[in-house]
Amino acid sequence: MSRWKPDARGRLEKAAMELYNDKGFDATTVAEIAARAEVTERTFYRHFVDKREVLFQRNALADVLAHATATAADSLAPLEVIAHALTEAAPVFEERAELVRQRQAVIAANPELQERELAKLAALVSTLAHALRERGLEDTTAALAAEIGIAAFKVAFERWIDGPDQRTLAGQIRETLDAARHLTAPARPVMPSQPTT
Amino acid sequence: MSRWKPDARGRLEKAAMELYNDKGFDATTVAEIAARAEVTERTFYRHFVDKREVLFQRNALADVLAHATATAADSLAPLEVIAHALTEAAPVFEERAELVRQRQAVIAANPELQERELAKLAALVSTLAHALRERGLEDTTAALAAEIGIAAFKVAFERWIDGPDQRTLAGQIRETLDAARHLTAPARPVMPSQPTT
Repeated sequence: MSRWKPDARGRLEKAAMELYNDKGFDATTVAEIAARAEVTERTFYRHFVDKREVLFQRNALADVLAHATATAADSLAPLEVIAHALTEAAPVFEERAELVRQRQAVIAANPELQERELAKLAALVSTLAHALRERGLEDTTAALAAEIGIAAFKVAFERWIDGPDQRTLAGQIRETLDAARHLTAPARPVMPSQPTT
Repeated sequence: MSRWKPDARGRLEKAAMELYNDKGFDATTVAEIAARAEVTERTFYRHFVDKREVLFQRNALADVLAHATATAADSLAPLEVIAHALTEAAPVFEERAELVRQRQAVIAANPELQERELAKLAALVSTLAHALRERGLEDTTAALAAEIGIAAFKVAFERWIDGPDQRTLAGQIRETLDAARHLTAPARPVMPSQPTT
């Protein structure tokens, strides 16, 4: 075994994403991940329960969303609270853009992992709805705002992942939520009535 | 075996929902479902591949959504198209309200079935997004409108399932989409500027 190198966890993640993309998630073994990361299998299991946990490890997202929702200004409309919370959370992904992109490709290639990912997004909706209820929002409004917020996040996230341009995730989130405002507007804008002369 | 009775499929569904609710999904066998429905196991397998398919059988929802989206008036805003499509689809559930409620209870009690249900909803989002693109909507707008539409449908559906009042699903959908409009409004409505005197 090679000499000790720093950041075993980071190298394990990187090795795993490369192998999952090259060979497929199902065909990759923990032994291969450990070998590519130049650590022992035992080291792998000190950091992750199994090879799926590399993809679905606990991250700061739920905490950041809950905290940003709780501390947003009282004057904000529900969807502005959501916009604030989601843009606060964007760095969780932006700081690891390359790994995040690889992870997404692995998940897109595997229906079981997609179902797991959807369950994780549903848990985020619950976290966000809870934080909105704590702000005093009524149940249905909180649930709806949380669903719409995570829906907009999904769309913004996909644009960010796929986007050939170098736009930030936070920028995509703001644009997507702006687009959401237009979707809900009536086909013809209501004109303020002309003052009679 | 008892005398032949009509609607074996309907009785199998009813028997399965009762058993899934009473004993749990995992503990229920196809033999038990068939016995309660007073048919042979062979009859069960003529109607369903396995006991999970009773919960996730192909229904008319995706077709109704796609058709209603395609044929909605050109003048409608994207979210009005969605509102039209979802209310058109409501009878798919309203006609089988009791079975739908039982089914929901079974799924709520089982994380694996929940993941399957989320995947089914994600497939509906794709169907709806495709139908909106066919109307000429640009990709991101179509994706976002479809996500928000299915998100609003989920919330309306839960209100309908849980609701002690006898409101219709179509009514819940309209109310939820109305609420969506308010969520996206600024905290303070923009006042038309006063005509200077």
